[in-house]
Amino acid sequence: MTCAGSGADPLGLITDGAVLCEGGRVVWVGPDEDADAASRALDVVVAERVDLGGRLLTPGLVDCHTHAVFAGDRSDEFAMRARGAGYLEIAKAGGGIAATLGPTRAATDADLERLTVDRLVAARATGTTTAEVKSGYDLTIAGEQRLLRVIARAGAQAGVAVVPTLLCHVIPPERKADRDVYVRELAEVLVPAVAAGGLATAVDIYCDDGAFTRDETATVLGAARGAGLAVKAHAGQFSDQGAAELCAELGALSVDHVEQVSDAGIAALAAAGTVAVMLPGACVQLRLPPPPVARLRAAGVPLAVASDLNPGSSYSSSLPLQMWMATTHFAMSVEEAWLGVTRVAARALGLSDRGMLAPGARADLVAWNAEHPAAIPYQYGANLVDRVLVA
Amino acid sequence: MTCAGSGADPLGLITDGAVLCEGGRVVWVGPDEDADAASRALDVVVAERVDLGGRLLTPGLVDCHTHAVFAGDRSDEFAMRARGAGYLEIAKAGGGIAATLGPTRAATDADLERLTVDRLVAARATGTTTAEVKSGYDLTIAGEQRLLRVIARAGAQAGVAVVPTLLCHVIPPERKADRDVYVRELAEVLVPAVAAGGLATAVDIYCDDGAFTRDETATVLGAARGAGLAVKAHAGQFSDQGAAELCAELGALSVDHVEQVSDAGIAALAAAGTVAVMLPGACVQLRLPPPPVARLRAAGVPLAVASDLNPGSSYSSSLPLQMWMATTHFAMSVEEAWLGVTRVAARALGLSDRGMLAPGARADLVAWNAEHPAAIPYQYGANLVDRVLVA
Repeated sequence: MTCAGSGADPLGLITDGAVLCEGGRVVWVGPDEDADAASRALDVVVAERVDLGGRLLTPGLVDCHTHAVFAGDRSDEFAMRARGAGYLEIAKAGGGIAATLGPTRAATDADLERLTVDRLVAARATGTTTAEVKSGYDLTIAGEQRLLRVIARAGAQAGVAVVPTLLCHVIPPERKADRDVYVRELAEVLVPAVAAGGLATAVDIYCDDGAFTRDETATVLGAARGAGLAVKAHAGQFSDQGAAELCAELGALSVDHVEQVSDAGIAALAAAGTVAVMLPGACVQLRLPPPPVARLRAAGVPLAVASDLNPGSSYSSSLPLQMWMATTHFAMSVEEAWLGVTRVAARALGLSDRGMLAPGARADLVAWNAEHPAAIPYQYGANLVDRVLVA
Repeated sequence: MTCAGSGADPLGLITDGAVLCEGGRVVWVGPDEDADAASRALDVVVAERVDLGGRLLTPGLVDCHTHAVFAGDRSDEFAMRARGAGYLEIAKAGGGIAATLGPTRAATDADLERLTVDRLVAARATGTTTAEVKSGYDLTIAGEQRLLRVIARAGAQAGVAVVPTLLCHVIPPERKADRDVYVRELAEVLVPAVAAGGLATAVDIYCDDGAFTRDETATVLGAARGAGLAVKAHAGQFSDQGAAELCAELGALSVDHVEQVSDAGIAALAAAGTVAVMLPGACVQLRLPPPPVARLRAAGVPLAVASDLNPGSSYSSSLPLQMWMATTHFAMSVEEAWLGVTRVAARALGLSDRGMLAPGARADLVAWNAEHPAAIPYQYGANLVDRVLVA
């Protein structure tokens, strides 16, 4: 399955197919019976031949929204929420994003790196070969840059291609009193430093009740665009602040969550080609209404699916499990779910060289103990990965 | 964690605890520092000492509702439902329970046994040490007895204690014309044969739109009680047929699903001490409204949580994942979810010797890579099982 199809065959299914790879890249995809001729025509020396025994072969999965770098334990908060505690009660008990700030700031680089590597290795075991990892659990100017460096090193160790993203998550508790100054520092100090240091290729910001306002979002993302970085936003998880329209205007790669989004916002996303990233695990865990998938689909907004791996609302790195929730709770089709964790997810990261099997793409491949694409979400909670090959 | 607690500590948490086992049974549970004195007092010779390194130790999980014996592949039907197809459209395309009948009837005993063993081994890997397995995918008098024999053999092979249950699932297609005769055969031939052969300890029946009516349910379960078997029912998944009231009257072990149940039904369940079995995976996959957990809790109905492992609505054997959905989508507490897959699940099977760690209980133990009970549902989709010890 190439995930490079179109029309009635969006997944690009090839029965008895073969893939030729060279130098970490795919050079040819087609029917097995044509593989020998293709290798001769392309002058590819086949040094190693892997027989997958008829297993389903797909591109490596792309997780386009994770917060994999953090320290601390918030299982108590999970238990409180299960008992019925609301956001405010949890915050009063010291929960929420602030609960992760302290342990993350206090952790050594080595500890943070080890925690992140462990999470990326677990993700890889369920098929993830590229993962975006956001900063956002330090919130100081220096600390956020530290997290971005940890992310890059962790990816190299875990054998997963990571895409570090600067996330302006919330106003940190110690800056509530001078919030305007903090926002200015983000735009005028942190964003330019990240761009100059090559620490991230995109800036994300959480635009919602209790996080950043639409105006603050415009300030930060405007600075990011000015510094030559791509932009995206956590938008409409709890309330619609008009972030979709703003992001579309800025040519954002993606808006993520969008449980709440207006028809005008949806039309703007479609016109701009901005991806809407569906995060069903967090939606279920926080008992939010599902996003308007049918309206997004009808408008032609590309839909990605991601894990939202984070300590507060979705402590899971398994994309196959998110695909099950996407196809059940979110009423997405199996084809949409597959493209959502491959081709469209890559697009949400601004990457055109992965998320599909086509000449020139990275040779990131997953073989599954399955015959059909539908088996992966269908047999939910099982790990059907047979093997993962990265580049 | 003993799952044998009460009051403010329902899970029976013991810090730095120890368990003494002999002859496949627990003989003592308490603080580690008292273990040596206890072994002397009880005259237990400690032949093997296992240091779990401070890991959380719990009773083996009990899955009190599975349909683990079936053949065939229904991933196509899953894909159809994801695309928006309804029950009738799927049935017209040959889907639904009928799609599993043909392959199951055609499969050899050896094939069915192998498939069931594979599923039970997967369940055990996520902590399940006792699993109820229902028949119900043959529907002929002889075929249902065959399935019950396969279930017993598969359990012995998989190293999981299985509880075979006779399930009167639906009227088979070939008996629609003489449905009354079929129901009489169930009550007068199949149920007595199962009881006489010791093939199951309980009879389950699916009482809902498209399955059995309340009167038919009364006939079959009445016969089961007459034959000395325990009874239970799939009740109120789509519509309330009054099965809860009927089951309570018959002293049923459990009613399962109960998305739809009246206040009178809930009061009857509470008075009878009948367990309500929550099946969140199937509820999410079929996009049904969640059952009235708050009303069931308020009335004092014991709540179990199970996988509903089956090829149509929930192809998953992981109880930890069901616990995540129970604590998020179903708004159950972490304590309720844990008791729901241990002590209360055992009660739903009429078993008092498991689902908790207490003297006399089976020595079914699971050690987890976790420190707190909340970690298991919290880190959803991950397998935190360190090791499983059965009897």
